[in-house]
Amino acid sequence: MSTAPASLRHSRDTITPALRAAVDRRDHRSRHQAAYHFGWITAGGAPTSADAGKAVRPALALLSAEAVGAPPEVALPGAVAVELVHNFSLVHDDLMDGDEERRHRRTVWKLWGPSSAILTGDAMLALAQEVLLDTGSPTAAPAARLLARTTRHLIRGQVQDLTFEQRGRVTVEECVDMAAGKTGALMSASAAIGAVLAGSPETTVDALALYGDHLGIAFQLVDDVLGIWGDPAVTGKPVHSDLRSRKKSLPVSHALNQDGPLSGELADWLATSGEPDEEELRRVAGLIEGAGGRDWALAEAARRMTLAEEALSGVGLDAGARGELLALGRFVVDRKV
Amino acid sequence: MSTAPASLRHSRDTITPALRAAVDRRDHRSRHQAAYHFGWITAGGAPTSADAGKAVRPALALLSAEAVGAPPEVALPGAVAVELVHNFSLVHDDLMDGDEERRHRRTVWKLWGPSSAILTGDAMLALAQEVLLDTGSPTAAPAARLLARTTRHLIRGQVQDLTFEQRGRVTVEECVDMAAGKTGALMSASAAIGAVLAGSPETTVDALALYGDHLGIAFQLVDDVLGIWGDPAVTGKPVHSDLRSRKKSLPVSHALNQDGPLSGELADWLATSGEPDEEELRRVAGLIEGAGGRDWALAEAARRMTLAEEALSGVGLDAGARGELLALGRFVVDRKV
Repeated sequence: MSTAPASLRHSRDTITPALRAAVDRRDHRSRHQAAYHFGWITAGGAPTSADAGKAVRPALALLSAEAVGAPPEVALPGAVAVELVHNFSLVHDDLMDGDEERRHRRTVWKLWGPSSAILTGDAMLALAQEVLLDTGSPTAAPAARLLARTTRHLIRGQVQDLTFEQRGRVTVEECVDMAAGKTGALMSASAAIGAVLAGSPETTVDALALYGDHLGIAFQLVDDVLGIWGDPAVTGKPVHSDLRSRKKSLPVSHALNQDGPLSGELADWLATSGEPDEEELRRVAGLIEGAGGRDWALAEAARRMTLAEEALSGVGLDAGARGELLALGRFVVDRKV
Repeated sequence: MSTAPASLRHSRDTITPALRAAVDRRDHRSRHQAAYHFGWITAGGAPTSADAGKAVRPALALLSAEAVGAPPEVALPGAVAVELVHNFSLVHDDLMDGDEERRHRRTVWKLWGPSSAILTGDAMLALAQEVLLDTGSPTAAPAARLLARTTRHLIRGQVQDLTFEQRGRVTVEECVDMAAGKTGALMSASAAIGAVLAGSPETTVDALALYGDHLGIAFQLVDDVLGIWGDPAVTGKPVHSDLRSRKKSLPVSHALNQDGPLSGELADWLATSGEPDEEELRRVAGLIEGAGGRDWALAEAARRMTLAEEALSGVGLDAGARGELLALGRFVVDRKV
């Protein structure tokens, strides 16, 4: 049995008190929206324990320290910081994408308006740096530097994502580069930040970062497959959600760049506007599958997982933690398909 | 003659190459909006040299290092970082406030949409931390920590500002606290960050920070006076701009909290909606002035400037740099009224 569910539970339990303490640094008015977003309170302010997400990134951060033989508490500020950066991007993305629900609850902008979502996200980003730098540890500065650079790449991926919406075609390479920014960068930083905080040598840090890069892209490939063919009961999103918004996700970009009539038909449909009905969405999902978009995405995800696992070989990591990192990666990517 | 205009010119000239290098870290697509916002290019991408703002915060940062006897280049990453944080807040504020022009040019959100403004601001905030931490100096971490804490206070002030719009009355204390967050916090960090980067003792850093706190509140008081009674040719904003949006600025909150009929009349008008005409705006400006809002704001600004100047006494600063800090503070606050 995989150790991943236990790692994730442990990660959530470990970081929550520190994450709450970070959010509590905000004044009482403005901490409300962040506490709601993290699932600790209802929109009205009553205590609750809603789904706060899987805590994959903090789990990676904690295992990253263990993998280099450091106690996990060394990584705790890093685990909290990557979770804050991740949620900064979710709160801003929900607003930019106009998504009204996340984890079966209304989004911050939907409840309190765009300005609240902008400011809640901004505050999470500032808090991430503050949590890291408040430790006063000599390794806090390189960790904070990693996080700032990562945030820049994360934003670059989001910019590409929005740009692609306005373009007819995007190459598969551009789409993978976007996923590397939007998803890979923070997974990579999460897998490396524990080792950075533990003061590990660069080759070790780089190996963990590479693991996270590949894992992030694999995760995005699978997420994109689910955005088209996923079960709404599992994904928490409407069926065909990525098709409704005509998103040029990875399977779509692969299908668009094939020869043959299906690709042309798909391009023509993407250039249309209006709200498609269920039948139309099923037909378009069929076009993408027929042009090989689904099979390619799943095969590429598997290839990335192999590369991720190879990255962790030969750098002398703690065997137990390395096994847990591999199990966590596989769990995150496989669980959904 | 004041040395302030020369300090500001020097500050702008000193930081611009480093600021451009920071913005150039973004990929070519997404650096465009930031370069436009800073006045380096037109919306179409042609080189230009539009008004990039007064560069008050970087000037404070550079003088802060000089005041403790350090060469100004020690403060350069700090000067760039505070300018990036300031402009992060402008780009997001313009979107949240729906302001279509800044420095006589269209705002980022107006030209490229809300998502571009959100992402451009986000990127500026991340770059500010990156620029500081890339120096690898042992003082970079405390400077980055100061900046992260400051950003939290800045966001708190903005949250209060938005909250006040939905409330009938706010106390003068609440309004001053909002100004301390929205304007004082970053002025304070700017005046202190050079000394932090130079490794100065805490008492010196605190004195410079206190100077910046008071200066920031004085600046906001004068800015609020100009938002009601300022000349559009000088402010670059429409006449009575803060009244049009029924903003509970400092002079308004003072007037609202006085006894007498003018205060009640003002409260009634603030509770109305619709687009007021020029005559109505002149009448309301008269109510605020009649209730003492203008005189109080200007007297309080003068009092804060005295406190700012006192903060710099007795901590053994370089006399020349101290003189320039005082001249800069007076110039920034007096110039406008």
